[in-house]
Amino acid sequence: MEHNNIPLVGGIEAGGTKFVCAIGTGPDDIRAETRFSTTTPAETLGQAIAFFREQVAVHGPIAAVGIGSFGPVDLRPLSPHWGYVTTTPKPGWAHTDVAGPVSKALGVPVGFDTDVNLAALGELIWGAAQGLDDFIYLTIGTGVGGGVFARGEMIHGLIHPELGHIPLPHDWEADPYPGHCPYHGDCLEGMTCGPAMADRWGASGSDLPPDHPAWDLEAHYLALALQSFICTLSPERIILGGGVMQQTQLFPLIREKVQRMLNGYVQSPAILEHIDEYIVPPGLGGRSGVMGAIALGQASYRIAHNVASKFRA
Amino acid sequence: MEHNNIPLVGGIEAGGTKFVCAIGTGPDDIRAETRFSTTTPAETLGQAIAFFREQVAVHGPIAAVGIGSFGPVDLRPLSPHWGYVTTTPKPGWAHTDVAGPVSKALGVPVGFDTDVNLAALGELIWGAAQGLDDFIYLTIGTGVGGGVFARGEMIHGLIHPELGHIPLPHDWEADPYPGHCPYHGDCLEGMTCGPAMADRWGASGSDLPPDHPAWDLEAHYLALALQSFICTLSPERIILGGGVMQQTQLFPLIREKVQRMLNGYVQSPAILEHIDEYIVPPGLGGRSGVMGAIALGQASYRIAHNVASKFRA
Repeated sequence: MEHNNIPLVGGIEAGGTKFVCAIGTGPDDIRAETRFSTTTPAETLGQAIAFFREQVAVHGPIAAVGIGSFGPVDLRPLSPHWGYVTTTPKPGWAHTDVAGPVSKALGVPVGFDTDVNLAALGELIWGAAQGLDDFIYLTIGTGVGGGVFARGEMIHGLIHPELGHIPLPHDWEADPYPGHCPYHGDCLEGMTCGPAMADRWGASGSDLPPDHPAWDLEAHYLALALQSFICTLSPERIILGGGVMQQTQLFPLIREKVQRMLNGYVQSPAILEHIDEYIVPPGLGGRSGVMGAIALGQASYRIAHNVASKFRA
Repeated sequence: MEHNNIPLVGGIEAGGTKFVCAIGTGPDDIRAETRFSTTTPAETLGQAIAFFREQVAVHGPIAAVGIGSFGPVDLRPLSPHWGYVTTTPKPGWAHTDVAGPVSKALGVPVGFDTDVNLAALGELIWGAAQGLDDFIYLTIGTGVGGGVFARGEMIHGLIHPELGHIPLPHDWEADPYPGHCPYHGDCLEGMTCGPAMADRWGASGSDLPPDHPAWDLEAHYLALALQSFICTLSPERIILGGGVMQQTQLFPLIREKVQRMLNGYVQSPAILEHIDEYIVPPGLGGRSGVMGAIALGQASYRIAHNVASKFRA
């Protein structure tokens, strides 16, 4: 049930398109993993719970479950709606308790945060952000979002960061595409998400050749966003994941544009000399989110254990 | 020498245009305060040191000094250049030790951070950010910059935030002004700082009537910047200070535009219902910076005391 004294836990990456569930102690010890489409809350959460019950029957009890959810979500520990998806436009999911049913059905402590915060956590514990206090994980896929660590802590603030929705310069003459975001039109997500690429070019990114002008424009908007995040957060590293970033030709384009846009203003060797190690792909590939959920499960177990031990004294 | 057991300390707001020095225990107990122009490092730091020596002769010894400096600065505790102004374009100040001469001359511990981080600290301890963990202090004056707290900690990261240098949407047809920033042209600072206003309208902001179209445009760019900071940092409150914000007609304009730009995406009552308490002027008026320096001086005294007491054991 344990592995080097690390408890066996469950992790759920609860995405708006698909759920990924895993049971294990870390990336080198995943006992089972499954993924399925996000349909109704009852059906989807039921599938997740059924998966863990089956796995517990094989591998023994799990100590906790970590859940990284699409959002917006309620992360306020004292809120009656902690663990809920709140105002999502996704049909059927608005104001849905996600953490509660999982905890009740499996009888274990549950940790809950955004999918992107947990992807950042996964990268911190086992990936490209190991040893860092201040970094960003940004995913560019069906949507655009990110997790932020500052001073070694995951940032929530008023709600949680929504990195995909910053405004960006938009040269309407050079690029008349109005953007894909139903709230803001041409914000970062509106200009760079996968559906925006498909919409603008009439073909999905994966069907465009690597030398198509789409990639230079995509890199342009992403570099503007990184200039913004660098000036706002001063991260020690930026990790770029998600489906769109599978197009690895984007990395050198983005790095060169970020240096050009910052124009020597941020005088750090990390940016001026070592940008190849500053803007990087995830160390865990596409598994940052579910691994972060495993890591949060372990943290939840430790927190629950410490809290419990206080009552014994 | 003490006041309610709070030690008497010095604070220096070391701005690029002027220095403000004060001695006291807090905003209600300032024994003396002075301000003078920032000239050469030797002359300016000499004036600051002379002020504290005079005050010590009257009020007794000070326990520490806090310094909030214009930047960029070196804040890395293990760097040989900690306490320096680094790559500033300000003539004579590049690579200048600021903390060292003050500490040596006065024989006390010195705390050092950016002027804007300390303005944020002042607001946290005595001003409009009391009790908050996540907030921003943004100053719009000769330049634009900001201090950021997240999870109760002042953010440094790779260097420190440079909030004034994020890129913003710029409708060149409606506003052909190219921007004032020597590095980025039409970044936030380039479009909204005091000199940009004077440059664009041919008159300084304080000479423009409150119903001049300049203010609506100024509020437009500032609201775009706040949308960006809200999506990136999720602050619980945003404090707007600096000379330009003396034009208090800007506040309702900015609040209304921020709500319109976010367009209901960030579903928090703080933004949807209580924006008058969300985007606010500084609680300490124009003294946030020097009060933050006093607060950092007190923290430095406590840190030095605790460190010293370890050696006694």
